Amino acid sequence: MAIISLMTDFGQQDEYVGVMKGVIMTTAPDARIVDLCHGIEPQNIVQAAFMIETAFPYFPPGTLHLLVVDPGVGGKRRIIYAEAGGHLFLCPDNGLLTRVEQTTGLTRVRQVTNRRIFKPHLSATFHGRDILAPVAAFIARGGDPARLGDEIATAAIVRLEGVGPQLRPDGRLTGQIVSIDHFGNLITNIGSNQLETMMADHPAPLFQIDIGGQLTTRLHLAYEEASPGEALAIIGSRQTLEIAVNQGRACDRYEAAIGCEVNVRRLPGAGLTGQG
Amino acid sequence: MAIISLMTDFGQQDEYVGVMKGVIMTTAPDARIVDLCHGIEPQNIVQAAFMIETAFPYFPPGTLHLLVVDPGVGGKRRIIYAEAGGHLFLCPDNGLLTRVEQTTGLTRVRQVTNRRIFKPHLSATFHGRDILAPVAAFIARGGDPARLGDEIATAAIVRLEGVGPQLRPDGRLTGQIVSIDHFGNLITNIGSNQLETMMADHPAPLFQIDIGGQLTTRLHLAYEEASPGEALAIIGSRQTLEIAVNQGRACDRYEAAIGCEVNVRRLPGAGLTGQG
Amino acid sequence: MAIISLMTDFGQQDEYVGVMKGVIMTTAPDARIVDLCHGIEPQNIVQAAFMIETAFPYFPPGTLHLLVVDPGVGGKRRIIYAEAGGHLFLCPDNGLLTRVEQTTGLTRVRQVTNRRIFKPHLSATFHGRDILAPVAAFIARGGDPARLGDEIATAAIVRLEGVGPQLRPDGRLTGQIVSIDHFGNLITNIGSNQLETMMADHPAPLFQIDIGGQLTTRLHLAYEEASPGEALAIIGSRQTLEIAVNQGRACDRYEAAIGCEVNVRRLPGAGLTGQG
Repeated sequence: MAIISLMTDFGQQDEYVGVMKGVIMTTAPDARIVDLCHGIEPQNIVQAAFMIETAFPYFPPGTLHLLVVDPGVGGKRRIIYAEAGGHLFLCPDNGLLTRVEQTTGLTRVRQVTNRRIFKPHLSATFHGRDILAPVAAFIARGGDPARLGDEIATAAIVRLEGVGPQLRPDGRLTGQIVSIDHFGNLITNIGSNQLETMMADHPAPLFQIDIGGQLTTRLHLAYEEASPGEALAIIGSRQTLEIAVNQGRACDRYEAAIGCEVNVRRLPGAGLTGQG
Repeated sequence: MAIISLMTDFGQQDEYVGVMKGVIMTTAPDARIVDLCHGIEPQNIVQAAFMIETAFPYFPPGTLHLLVVDPGVGGKRRIIYAEAGGHLFLCPDNGLLTRVEQTTGLTRVRQVTNRRIFKPHLSATFHGRDILAPVAAFIARGGDPARLGDEIATAAIVRLEGVGPQLRPDGRLTGQIVSIDHFGNLITNIGSNQLETMMADHPAPLFQIDIGGQLTTRLHLAYEEASPGEALAIIGSRQTLEIAVNQGRACDRYEAAIGCEVNVRRLPGAGLTGQG
Repeated sequence: MAIISLMTDFGQQDEYVGVMKGVIMTTAPDARIVDLCHGIEPQNIVQAAFMIETAFPYFPPGTLHLLVVDPGVGGKRRIIYAEAGGHLFLCPDNGLLTRVEQTTGLTRVRQVTNRRIFKPHLSATFHGRDILAPVAAFIARGGDPARLGDEIATAAIVRLEGVGPQLRPDGRLTGQIVSIDHFGNLITNIGSNQLETMMADHPAPLFQIDIGGQLTTRLHLAYEEASPGEALAIIGSRQTLEIAVNQGRACDRYEAAIGCEVNVRRLPGAGLTGQG
């Protein structure tokens, strides 16, 4: 039984997601449809690119991930199909697969051009319903991806530039907030392995984290290590640095938004703030 | 396998939708339940009536659409069952099917009165759980609609008045905003076919659209035809006029709410703002 | 076919719920997963405890209810499994089952300690994904609960204190608002049976309800018994006292929050405000 996960910036207040499900069920009545996330910030391709990177491996191999964050809907951007790590992906060609490609690699990339699989009438504003949902249903029913359209070189797809953290000449690691969750936690793109590399020659994990110069801290191992209302840094569920406030909202504390810089630097001495 | 779609004004923060699903699954374990939309404005029957009109045809024939926007819950309003275009509908008799009736026609309308199908105890506030969910499960299991209650004349159900756009003596077409979506797009009840009729003797689609006198524009074919932050008019996914701001929120730009008037008038000359 | 209901404070904007579903589907592909509620206030165990009490009986017997409101995630709190009224429950041991225990009783309580069932890597912040989802999938596939971990005495689990309404010496019944729903209705923990007991020697249901001294009323039988915009008291869908405003938002009218006191007292005479 095919599984289709849905990630969009549609929110949940409108009929859009429900109608896409109706379209899929009409063609592929046995497909199982799972809402992965509909809370991507409108048009925020970067946020979606990081989210799908870490979320897709939790689904069964063979899952088709349908991504609809599509500011270019109705325009000239392509729709693409790709495979990565045994999973299938279908989305506008606007950078959404940048992170999946970087960490897992893409294969069998195709542009999706076969209009016979689409809805007969294409609206100008909702290709999730008119193109992506029927194509997903086609694949879920065992349709051959070769019928979607021509294979294209992976190098030919659109990529986001500069979305990973940068190691600066002064030793700082500069990343960004790539998501702010329902709890107000600030989720960065700074991986735990990057932090480990940075601290490899230090006996204890001592470093400084800045969001607009406001936070100095050590890494915590659980929210409750901080007092209620106190800020903390922690390796979150994506294996990246998160800034949180125990039982509070870090996004309010730091007036932070997606895209804000987060800087990490090693502290010159030991024993300043660390616990080990 | 029966499909039940759910459209409500319950939002998603409470247990209400989940409990309805539990009730349905208890009686009809094989039914597939799909969230069509739970973001109808509280008690906004007009919004729901337009949404279900254009959404239901995207579901497989035979789908049962359960609509719960029910300001009269616990009072004297009836519950009705009806069929339209090969789909089944179950809802309070308060006008929710007005648009489906106008565009598709209703058949086999029944009032739902058979308390043996309901939950034994009826709350005063949640007939979605106590009446509509068990009745939906009854139908999903193949129960005969004739057992729900007496057939009634279609003319006997409650209809919303004046919900379509009006052609004014001065040539204006006056419609309303019937939904504001997650992106802030203003969705009107002015159909693309009405606009086409209006412009039939014009070589180019030149007209003026007013929301509180603030917008003059042509029809765009894609959001990205406008510059980021620029307002535009477009035929949206319901095949009706939508007012949008490319990568922005039209509802904030125009301080618009559901129910606001939108006026369209032909421009006297050509070449003023049009593109063709 | 196993059913798993999900109740969390995760909201719906992030990938958290979707990823949990992916984990469950990977191990238990036939399980049916139902969103019971993801709108619990962050970390509000009391709200969740009351919600699950009245919601779970609407699901089929044998349903596994997975509750994730978990301020102590990553710390020392236990995960527990329990059965109640033919339903299965899995949650952090932080009081979430307090109300289910009080009204239905718990059996077969176990602490969940068998790491071989968990994901190999445990994050510090998302045990819903790393522990609770795989354990739920294990049970959904027919795994023996005895393999989760040792049975523990029901008395050994964490309970919330003072969460029921109190009868005061002066005859007042003092309860709390335990949820505020999407419509702004104030849902209290004062049961209809407690109100009935209180009024047993009165011919008519005359009493006074105070939220910060602001409301005096009778019980209404339907929202529409009040005029639009008028406040009313009603027995809601949980069979508890609710304060509502017909077609309005009671939470705005009373500036009420979860946790606020609601007092009910019998009126000294008859005929003052009652309808009978």
